[in-house]
Amino acid sequence: MNKTIETIKNHRSIRDYKSKKIDEAILNEIIIAAQSMPSSINGQQLSIVVIQDKKTKTLIAEHAGGQPWIAKAPVFLLFITDFFKTNLAAIKNGVTQKIHESIESTLVGAVDVGLSMGAAIIAAESLGLGIVPIGGIRRDPQAMIDLLKLPEMTFPVAGLSIGYPNSPSDKKPRLPLNTFRHDESYHKENLESDIDNYDVLMSSYLKTIGRSQEGNWSSRTSSVYKKVYFPNVLPVMIKQGFDNNK
Amino acid sequence: MNKTIETIKNHRSIRDYKSKKIDEAILNEIIIAAQSMPSSINGQQLSIVVIQDKKTKTLIAEHAGGQPWIAKAPVFLLFITDFFKTNLAAIKNGVTQKIHESIESTLVGAVDVGLSMGAAIIAAESLGLGIVPIGGIRRDPQAMIDLLKLPEMTFPVAGLSIGYPNSPSDKKPRLPLNTFRHDESYHKENLESDIDNYDVLMSSYLKTIGRSQEGNWSSRTSSVYKKVYFPNVLPVMIKQGFDNNK
Repeated sequence: MNKTIETIKNHRSIRDYKSKKIDEAILNEIIIAAQSMPSSINGQQLSIVVIQDKKTKTLIAEHAGGQPWIAKAPVFLLFITDFFKTNLAAIKNGVTQKIHESIESTLVGAVDVGLSMGAAIIAAESLGLGIVPIGGIRRDPQAMIDLLKLPEMTFPVAGLSIGYPNSPSDKKPRLPLNTFRHDESYHKENLESDIDNYDVLMSSYLKTIGRSQEGNWSSRTSSVYKKVYFPNVLPVMIKQGFDNNK
Repeated sequence: MNKTIETIKNHRSIRDYKSKKIDEAILNEIIIAAQSMPSSINGQQLSIVVIQDKKTKTLIAEHAGGQPWIAKAPVFLLFITDFFKTNLAAIKNGVTQKIHESIESTLVGAVDVGLSMGAAIIAAESLGLGIVPIGGIRRDPQAMIDLLKLPEMTFPVAGLSIGYPNSPSDKKPRLPLNTFRHDESYHKENLESDIDNYDVLMSSYLKTIGRSQEGNWSSRTSSVYKKVYFPNVLPVMIKQGFDNNK
């Protein structure tokens, strides 16, 4: 339909990067793109920590549970939800900020991180760069806070490794479109059979890329989601000043 | 730098639309773009309800606190976090899903909604369409659930109005880049003075567009964030099966 939509539809994760650096001008364009997205009430309650230092990236790779591509990629972006800045606005105006004491701040902060990271991904891919999002930074959020000196009322939500692809990667198929697009109201009718069909497709895809041990979509997803993983998220959120009980 | 990045950097909200419909082929491309974004563990824990019915849009405009542009736009997309589908995966594999009982599901669901909505925004704008994100659907989430028949373990996170712009709109300035981009670690040093400078800029911008009653960034943001707004979010999340205390 056009080059932008082609770029988006062509997305795939890249975990193998060339040693080639990313020019500062290019990196800054990606950050500006990320900042150009809308935010709830224009609160702009998010920040990005840009990490290029090899030692810091190596530490993050360990904190994320052993993900060597984080160290190998020339750039790592950490997206943080940031109610520290909006709290400075409250202090300036002589009022007490309350939003970080409600679930709304967690929701809005995370949506805004997603919007911004989405723009960074699309901008990077439009320039021939490859990316992989890193949820593993939530495995030990306190380590990220200490390492990157994140203040109170902030929380590290997601990371993004960026670099020039060293080898091509395959495009992962998605669930059938009608499990994702629901017209006029939610439609449950065909979800089971659509999942069955997707399991067959993913099983065959995983075989092709040499990861057949992952089974299929439903077996892999349910094996992760049968437990509360990343149990450190809640206590660290509370320590940072967030309260999800209002 | 290229057309895609130009599109992203040129983002602005559009609330005034032509009556012109959006072709089905174009709408579907936007939805496919939204589905092409990465999701945590490839769980694909989100869905979009596509609303074109005038009566439904009019009801949503009311539930969102009186936002007539929702009714006027030819298309409204509701982005929902969807652990109903991943629960079907659990049932198929004979395990009990636990993820929706932890804050991780709220975070991941919202980030994935943001990523997907980001792609929908950029895809739509690349085609000359205008958009405005609608957080107001969280004002009365139960009304959205009833109206659109959303099942348990789903939650309406954000909406998006899309249509052809009827009148141009101004591009809102952002906080200074160095409040957003932090190199190697978080930098608090100049935040207060950067906010002061941005307040002056926003005050002048708001005057230009005839909305001087909003004051400036810090006065407007702090006046919203001094209270827990959208107090219905938490009880409805709990009713839908989510628990943010693990």
